[in-house]
Amino acid sequence: MSPSSLPNAKFFNVTTPAPFVAHVEINRPSKMNAFCAPMWIELKGIFDHLSTDPDLRCIVLSGAGDRAFTAGLDVQEASQSSTLGGSGPGDTARKATSVRRHILELQDAVSSVARCEKPVIALVHGITFGLGIDLSTACDIRMAETNTKFSVKEVDIGLAADVGTLSRLPKVAGGLTSWVKEITLSARVFSAEEALKNNFVSRVVSGKAELIKQGIELAKYISTKSPVAVQGTKNILDAAWGRTVEDNLNYTAVWNAAMIQSTDVSRAMLSGLQKKTPTFEKL
Amino acid sequence: MSPSSLPNAKFFNVTTPAPFVAHVEINRPSKMNAFCAPMWIELKGIFDHLSTDPDLRCIVLSGAGDRAFTAGLDVQEASQSSTLGGSGPGDTARKATSVRRHILELQDAVSSVARCEKPVIALVHGITFGLGIDLSTACDIRMAETNTKFSVKEVDIGLAADVGTLSRLPKVAGGLTSWVKEITLSARVFSAEEALKNNFVSRVVSGKAELIKQGIELAKYISTKSPVAVQGTKNILDAAWGRTVEDNLNYTAVWNAAMIQSTDVSRAMLSGLQKKTPTFEKL
Amino acid sequence: MSPSSLPNAKFFNVTTPAPFVAHVEINRPSKMNAFCAPMWIELKGIFDHLSTDPDLRCIVLSGAGDRAFTAGLDVQEASQSSTLGGSGPGDTARKATSVRRHILELQDAVSSVARCEKPVIALVHGITFGLGIDLSTACDIRMAETNTKFSVKEVDIGLAADVGTLSRLPKVAGGLTSWVKEITLSARVFSAEEALKNNFVSRVVSGKAELIKQGIELAKYISTKSPVAVQGTKNILDAAWGRTVEDNLNYTAVWNAAMIQSTDVSRAMLSGLQKKTPTFEKL
Amino acid sequence: MSPSSLPNAKFFNVTTPAPFVAHVEINRPSKMNAFCAPMWIELKGIFDHLSTDPDLRCIVLSGAGDRAFTAGLDVQEASQSSTLGGSGPGDTARKATSVRRHILELQDAVSSVARCEKPVIALVHGITFGLGIDLSTACDIRMAETNTKFSVKEVDIGLAADVGTLSRLPKVAGGLTSWVKEITLSARVFSAEEALKNNFVSRVVSGKAELIKQGIELAKYISTKSPVAVQGTKNILDAAWGRTVEDNLNYTAVWNAAMIQSTDVSRAMLSGLQKKTPTFEKL
Amino acid sequence: MSPSSLPNAKFFNVTTPAPFVAHVEINRPSKMNAFCAPMWIELKGIFDHLSTDPDLRCIVLSGAGDRAFTAGLDVQEASQSSTLGGSGPGDTARKATSVRRHILELQDAVSSVARCEKPVIALVHGITFGLGIDLSTACDIRMAETNTKFSVKEVDIGLAADVGTLSRLPKVAGGLTSWVKEITLSARVFSAEEALKNNFVSRVVSGKAELIKQGIELAKYISTKSPVAVQGTKNILDAAWGRTVEDNLNYTAVWNAAMIQSTDVSRAMLSGLQKKTPTFEKL
Amino acid sequence: MSPSSLPNAKFFNVTTPAPFVAHVEINRPSKMNAFCAPMWIELKGIFDHLSTDPDLRCIVLSGAGDRAFTAGLDVQEASQSSTLGGSGPGDTARKATSVRRHILELQDAVSSVARCEKPVIALVHGITFGLGIDLSTACDIRMAETNTKFSVKEVDIGLAADVGTLSRLPKVAGGLTSWVKEITLSARVFSAEEALKNNFVSRVVSGKAELIKQGIELAKYISTKSPVAVQGTKNILDAAWGRTVEDNLNYTAVWNAAMIQSTDVSRAMLSGLQKKTPTFEKL
Repeated sequence: MSPSSLPNAKFFNVTTPAPFVAHVEINRPSKMNAFCAPMWIELKGIFDHLSTDPDLRCIVLSGAGDRAFTAGLDVQEASQSSTLGGSGPGDTARKATSVRRHILELQDAVSSVARCEKPVIALVHGITFGLGIDLSTACDIRMAETNTKFSVKEVDIGLAADVGTLSRLPKVAGGLTSWVKEITLSARVFSAEEALKNNFVSRVVSGKAELIKQGIELAKYISTKSPVAVQGTKNILDAAWGRTVEDNLNYTAVWNAAMIQSTDVSRAMLSGLQKKTPTFEKL
Repeated sequence: MSPSSLPNAKFFNVTTPAPFVAHVEINRPSKMNAFCAPMWIELKGIFDHLSTDPDLRCIVLSGAGDRAFTAGLDVQEASQSSTLGGSGPGDTARKATSVRRHILELQDAVSSVARCEKPVIALVHGITFGLGIDLSTACDIRMAETNTKFSVKEVDIGLAADVGTLSRLPKVAGGLTSWVKEITLSARVFSAEEALKNNFVSRVVSGKAELIKQGIELAKYISTKSPVAVQGTKNILDAAWGRTVEDNLNYTAVWNAAMIQSTDVSRAMLSGLQKKTPTFEKL
Repeated sequence: MSPSSLPNAKFFNVTTPAPFVAHVEINRPSKMNAFCAPMWIELKGIFDHLSTDPDLRCIVLSGAGDRAFTAGLDVQEASQSSTLGGSGPGDTARKATSVRRHILELQDAVSSVARCEKPVIALVHGITFGLGIDLSTACDIRMAETNTKFSVKEVDIGLAADVGTLSRLPKVAGGLTSWVKEITLSARVFSAEEALKNNFVSRVVSGKAELIKQGIELAKYISTKSPVAVQGTKNILDAAWGRTVEDNLNYTAVWNAAMIQSTDVSRAMLSGLQKKTPTFEKL
Repeated sequence: MSPSSLPNAKFFNVTTPAPFVAHVEINRPSKMNAFCAPMWIELKGIFDHLSTDPDLRCIVLSGAGDRAFTAGLDVQEASQSSTLGGSGPGDTARKATSVRRHILELQDAVSSVARCEKPVIALVHGITFGLGIDLSTACDIRMAETNTKFSVKEVDIGLAADVGTLSRLPKVAGGLTSWVKEITLSARVFSAEEALKNNFVSRVVSGKAELIKQGIELAKYISTKSPVAVQGTKNILDAAWGRTVEDNLNYTAVWNAAMIQSTDVSRAMLSGLQKKTPTFEKL
Repeated sequence: MSPSSLPNAKFFNVTTPAPFVAHVEINRPSKMNAFCAPMWIELKGIFDHLSTDPDLRCIVLSGAGDRAFTAGLDVQEASQSSTLGGSGPGDTARKATSVRRHILELQDAVSSVARCEKPVIALVHGITFGLGIDLSTACDIRMAETNTKFSVKEVDIGLAADVGTLSRLPKVAGGLTSWVKEITLSARVFSAEEALKNNFVSRVVSGKAELIKQGIELAKYISTKSPVAVQGTKNILDAAWGRTVEDNLNYTAVWNAAMIQSTDVSRAMLSGLQKKTPTFEKL
Repeated sequence: MSPSSLPNAKFFNVTTPAPFVAHVEINRPSKMNAFCAPMWIELKGIFDHLSTDPDLRCIVLSGAGDRAFTAGLDVQEASQSSTLGGSGPGDTARKATSVRRHILELQDAVSSVARCEKPVIALVHGITFGLGIDLSTACDIRMAETNTKFSVKEVDIGLAADVGTLSRLPKVAGGLTSWVKEITLSARVFSAEEALKNNFVSRVVSGKAELIKQGIELAKYISTKSPVAVQGTKNILDAAWGRTVEDNLNYTAVWNAAMIQSTDVSRAMLSGLQKKTPTFEKL
């Protein structure tokens, strides 16, 4: 039942705390899980792998240690590279080209979480700044520890957030509400309670251990369901954003034309009648 | 003042509890108002009719009996047809074609509620599973009885919801929030209180009788307003989803170019000055 | 530090209560700040000017006097013009053309607030009807005084709201929720508390003086941040609505290709390390 | 091999000149095949039926008699109804509502041709005015007799074409070219040769009999191909218009996920190797 | 019949060579009609005025003198300003902001031609470089003199065309064809014949005088038609680009709901029966 | 001037026939350049590399040998894999998932050509079937040898083309014209002359050697232009498809805000005045 070969990574722990459930842990606690250059590549490698691993059905994402989900970009390291502030060679247009390519690469790493075919649950805790918001908006479900400190921090380092938050926060937090504008324009820290009240997270849990426990419980629960149904639901829902209801209805019909021809339907129905838990083929 | 000919249906009661207000009641209480094949056709027939009936200005939709708004698709019946699970004749592509056509038909029935020119208020109570969510997301306003049990049930029968919920829930419940993903991916039951907190319903009322009463009161109130104004508001608002603000502003200007040339404007203004209730021509 | 030439206007006060902060006050208190014809032109003139004034970084918008943010369109005046109700010359098509042009002009005035490159904070209080909602949805952040009375009033004068509310309310208030439909279809008055609960405003403050104070405080706080970062954040966020995440990510990368090449990044970072408040060049 | 029950219609002949090929003939030659009210309903009935008839794979559409494909709307009849010119009851807004509903119905009839799952080949000849253009733009392929006289005639009766031409001509004739604007703004008559040069038709044939013959030949040829492949090609191509390449690629992958699992692939390949004509199951 | 007050301009002649027809002539022949700074403002002023002048129904646009429609931007002048090459004050981000605002202004001037409610016919001749292409793509119909020399010249001065060509050429010249890419990527000069073959212009005429004559003839012809029909046709067609057929059909129905209620319909029909030329009210 | 490290590939030759010009040759002539599994990966590897190689500015793509550009997918090989016809393990839904992932991968390989930042010129000759069309629609410019035989062949092997043709042909060949529908629905072979007439290619050249020569000449010519200008033009043009003119204008302004701040502008202008050929920094 355990995946044959989980991806290896230096800055992430990938474990399987339960059947069909992977736990990805950002693992650079000495730096508050801040992201250095190799971590982006590892992140994408891991989620691209998990996306199609038939032994997995749901993923939880957290940070190692008690202090932070992630403090965001490792600004110290970034400030020594030429990208931020544009100190590289060439004229402005050439620097801009280089910067744009770099941003697209970082976006692609974060988008690997959003593109992952399986649901991903962000379990955020402690410092969750900048990239921490980018990552959690790329997840499907967000649960927070009581004392989490959130900030869309980018404005504080002189730039508009550019690896996902501004594109996905309106999608996951109820549009361009007054609150969304306030926290993105001011970079002020907000609490778990405020995140819950504004629909950014759906649950607040006291204590990191309990948070991880509840996150894994939910992941296990989702993993008992038909993977055809669960992964189809994620795909269709995400396709709804920025498109019309009519387009999405048609897309849904095309999707289910194949997907409804699965053995999961009869297994699920039969189990429902027999009050048993169904088992489903790998996907 | 009462509509000359309300549509007749076997599985729905259609009444006019107040001037300009229709009450559509799903009427198969012995089966928890679960939908069998003919009900889809009746549903569309009813709402297509009500959509242009000049004697009506607002519609409420509820379920007969105390146990359910609707338990959703009549799974027992559906499991004997060839659509679910794809047991029909032909190869996979041919089955897929048949399944796709069938889904598009069912979607079209549910969409008749969304397309209805008049506002529709869903009054949900008891079991509101699967199709119950599809139907209520196709309505404009949702009010729930305190003990309503909601579930986006489809994942539990092995498929992604395909007749409207996944396309419309992001529209009516604040985007693709953590909560929207959680309830659609897990199929877990949620309460009226949770529905209220997450903006899925705008009112929770204790007792089905009181729910119906308040729903009809709201429908009556809306029916006292200019039907040109009310129906234009519904049309323009729905056109906003999945399109840009700029496109919608232009569409609004084109819409009102004709609609503002109505006698309702002077009648409404005059009544406002005279503190009287205006009357409006039929629409 | 104060802007060299603030725009002059008969019906608006424009002041600079703090460095980089402009306060625009709708100033026709004797008529509850209702809008007469010249006010639309003044409004656009003011916000077009403020949009590119390098001495300003954030704007607050409120109404003069205690009674109203604005009671909306000056209906008395409007009823004497030929637009509403379409009493002008020509056949229906010609009237429609004239009405459409007029609506597009009024929309353009309101959109000047939304297009303003700087964040605009609506501080609403007292009567906030009709155009008051149009204006506040065109702002980025909304804060309300405790006793504010809101109404999407247009249905009460026989027409669908056509200068912005129906296009922007779904964007700023969590989509086409049950609540959004209810208040737009019924024109009923709602309270500040209800506005807060439904994410329309992000803060409720007791007393108009305190509201203005807190609004200016927030504006001052935002003005301490990098204007490149703040104005980029506003631009990118607004471009997210009605478009896909993928399109917005690409747009963001193109935007930041230039904007990240600013001195603000190093200034902000250095100040962060030195625990000082950075200063930024004008923009 | 012949369809069990072809739809019956008063104003259309429906025949099967070859296996899997239907010929729909507009049949009101005494009036130059001009459309009277019942014809719209018949048109939709026929194409809705043909769309899913498993015995059909391609459809040709022509007009009875030598004089016209269709002269368009029966203006004489239309001028006696209340829709054109808006002479019906009620104020402008109420007339507008009635007109809008009527246009949507007529559009829906024309769109039944575009929605038809099978390819439709327009064989146009003689007078092809107004609705004749609407209908032919709703078809997939257009072939014209040498002496065809085309006109987007609506401007000549005082209105913008509203049942399809303005929406589909940019799609089928190379965008909003100078020629497209010229013929739609001026209503001038254009020839088959001009239609060919401007990519509106793909073939010009001398003599109506020869046109019908060649049209049916092409329909027969298309009908020898895999219906899964042909109908999928039509569906995916039409979904490309007004959407991005990225969206269409994803849609295509979802579509083919089921459709490629057909026996047609192995049959087609085997026949290719054996230089035989494959046969395919009905669809 | 002549417009009461045609706009005055230093660098443009505006005349009325025929009833309802305006002729706008770019008038800086000593500089090959190259655009200096004030010309952009004049251009917008003229077309904003003509757009709603009831005495006009069609506009032709040409260049003064024999040598050029326009040689494009006055590069000499532009090279002394700080915009091109970004030599202005401030860091890269601040320069970028200033450049972006400037481009948006120039685009807005060109877009005033596209937004003009009346059809605009570009009569191009001689050198038609850079801005000459931008302007002509913003027109509805393009006719060229035999010896016209076209070039999307911007690549030759080191930049991507940014005031309209790249956005509108795919719309008016058959999508992103091989030819469109070739001429935009290479900046090579192309002839009138090539422009005709590639659907960029719809007519080639020998001699400038004859070109002007034929252009005005076409404008006169279009001006004999119902202005409600003509201007509606332009509006609806332009709304088709970048949107779906379904959206455009709905928009068309809403547009015509008012516009069909014009006296033009009965006048046009009656004149048709009487073989007379109808006259229409001003619009 | 020659790129330091051109990508190595087994099935492709990559050479630099001129400064800044790469020539990619599909190199499996014994199989008519049909694509076997490893070739997709190589293709993507090559174009991802070339996309950002600063020593290159334009790319030509042709096939090795005289017989074919490419005969398309290696059907013999493909028929032995489980993807086509869906003979893999699992139920229909699981097969569909596997097929969908596979199609998305193949699409991604073809899209690497379209995404390549530099212009790509397809030089097609001999058999150009199936994938040959997919590849050439992903290029910017298409030139054909006189005797090229084209076919959108997929319908002949029982499936709708799914790696790019149906999504990009409407973009590069003038929309969904009658001709586009005819060749895609019938899979019939068409000639270079027909391809030229229908705007699919922009030049027909006699003899493969001459074709390659002219292709390289054009590539060299484009490479003399500012790479900032050329690559910006490609990016902005491609962003126009499926989006509105207004969105594209705004995107263009943001793009050029940085890109116009290049030294290329002054170099190009100066060279223009001096009638010299400018040189540009690498990009």
